[in-house]
Amino acid sequence: MTVHPTDDHAPDRAGLAPRAARQLFREGLVTPTAGWSRGWTQANLMVLPRDLALDFLVFAQRNPKPCPVLDVLEAGEVSGPLLDGDVRTDLPAYRVYVDGELAEETTDVSGWWREDLVSFLVGCSFTFESALVEGGVPVRHVEQGVNVPMYMTSRRCRPAGAISGPLVVSMRPVPAEQVADAVRITSRYPAVHGAPVHVGDPAALGIADLSRPDFGDPVDVRPGEVPVFWACGVTPQAAVMESRPPLAIAHAPGHMLVTDARDSDYLVP
Amino acid sequence: MTVHPTDDHAPDRAGLAPRAARQLFREGLVTPTAGWSRGWTQANLMVLPRDLALDFLVFAQRNPKPCPVLDVLEAGEVSGPLLDGDVRTDLPAYRVYVDGELAEETTDVSGWWREDLVSFLVGCSFTFESALVEGGVPVRHVEQGVNVPMYMTSRRCRPAGAISGPLVVSMRPVPAEQVADAVRITSRYPAVHGAPVHVGDPAALGIADLSRPDFGDPVDVRPGEVPVFWACGVTPQAAVMESRPPLAIAHAPGHMLVTDARDSDYLVP
Repeated sequence: MTVHPTDDHAPDRAGLAPRAARQLFREGLVTPTAGWSRGWTQANLMVLPRDLALDFLVFAQRNPKPCPVLDVLEAGEVSGPLLDGDVRTDLPAYRVYVDGELAEETTDVSGWWREDLVSFLVGCSFTFESALVEGGVPVRHVEQGVNVPMYMTSRRCRPAGAISGPLVVSMRPVPAEQVADAVRITSRYPAVHGAPVHVGDPAALGIADLSRPDFGDPVDVRPGEVPVFWACGVTPQAAVMESRPPLAIAHAPGHMLVTDARDSDYLVP
Repeated sequence: MTVHPTDDHAPDRAGLAPRAARQLFREGLVTPTAGWSRGWTQANLMVLPRDLALDFLVFAQRNPKPCPVLDVLEAGEVSGPLLDGDVRTDLPAYRVYVDGELAEETTDVSGWWREDLVSFLVGCSFTFESALVEGGVPVRHVEQGVNVPMYMTSRRCRPAGAISGPLVVSMRPVPAEQVADAVRITSRYPAVHGAPVHVGDPAALGIADLSRPDFGDPVDVRPGEVPVFWACGVTPQAAVMESRPPLAIAHAPGHMLVTDARDSDYLVP
């Protein structure tokens, strides 16, 4: 099946408890999760066979800015402290990859499940975006109602075992006089990508054209604004795909796991 | 063999580059490493067969305060970015455990090495002790020239797979008016145990008698001082031993790996 994002969800989505949101998704609601369950942490999902899990976790340990692991569900587990539910059904949409190729986009991966699958919950920059907005820093893709623009860079991650790949970054244009605020605010969230990896020069990252992101949507960069780049949670997906595992399951872009952790749990005071 | 700590090392040990220190150890010098290569990070070592490595790394991810992983040498690797040398020979002393029992204490584990061994380098509180001293906070065991006192607690770590165990803490007595400084200073080193896990009440951690530590040496707690407890790098060793792996290799207590990373690399500004 192909999943199409829809907007016909309850209007109080920002106020829904994570458990209630996950129940709607489990019942079949398909929607991007931006704006849902405000104040609760959303996570990227990466599910791999156990014999690739060590390489993935070492890769994440070596590249903590793009791959901040929030929790691991061991082989055979489908729930955990961040998820009182079932990781196979509680996201609005999933992507299933076989030998590194997209095999299916679906709302329920129970049919693909095996006892040797290990699930990694990886931090997401949604967590610091509300802090940016509260700090008066504009978040353009939210203002424009589109997905954040993401770019493959010429920078390689430090590889681990079978897993290697490029650093993927997200970009937010920030008024020059607020760049320091954006750095300061996001630095306080090291578990969810933290401070920017680069400020100001796309070419230095091998990005030729900001208006043509590799993932997500382009956004306006206005006069007086500087492009600011953060390590992105798509990095682990890009790396896993390069290694062409026999089976990998991930969330569909923008359709995240809404967890039982609070954004403030990842704030360093 | 039994390894006896000695003090007959070069008097400029604080100024030695890590590489030079490791060469002395490789050539057979046996000494605790406290005070060596000041400003350079020292690390706990834990070496395990690959089929236990995922459980260990998930355990560390779930218990980051006692088990801060600085780097992983993959199966077959004996050096890495933190260690331009050979992890089998470059520590002053090792402990080898077979089925969870101490089998040998030695200065060279080359004879035990197997291609499936994975080495974990785990952060050590030596890193923040120099910051405490610079911040005017006394570090009693250094003043008294003994090993830091360490205690098993009644708190259990969150288990992972085959690995489970108690939280082990180190204790430093701090004058009541400097406890806030000690918290503030060590909070800035989250990669090497970070802020204290507990301040002031040993009984709440299940510690009956501060004068009888489970590891290391007792230190004086003076009037007006409060016992402050930090998560301790002995925790992963205690947990691994509980799981009785067929083979495990660790540093001998106090005989750490002197790495090529600077303490300041782990400072959060």
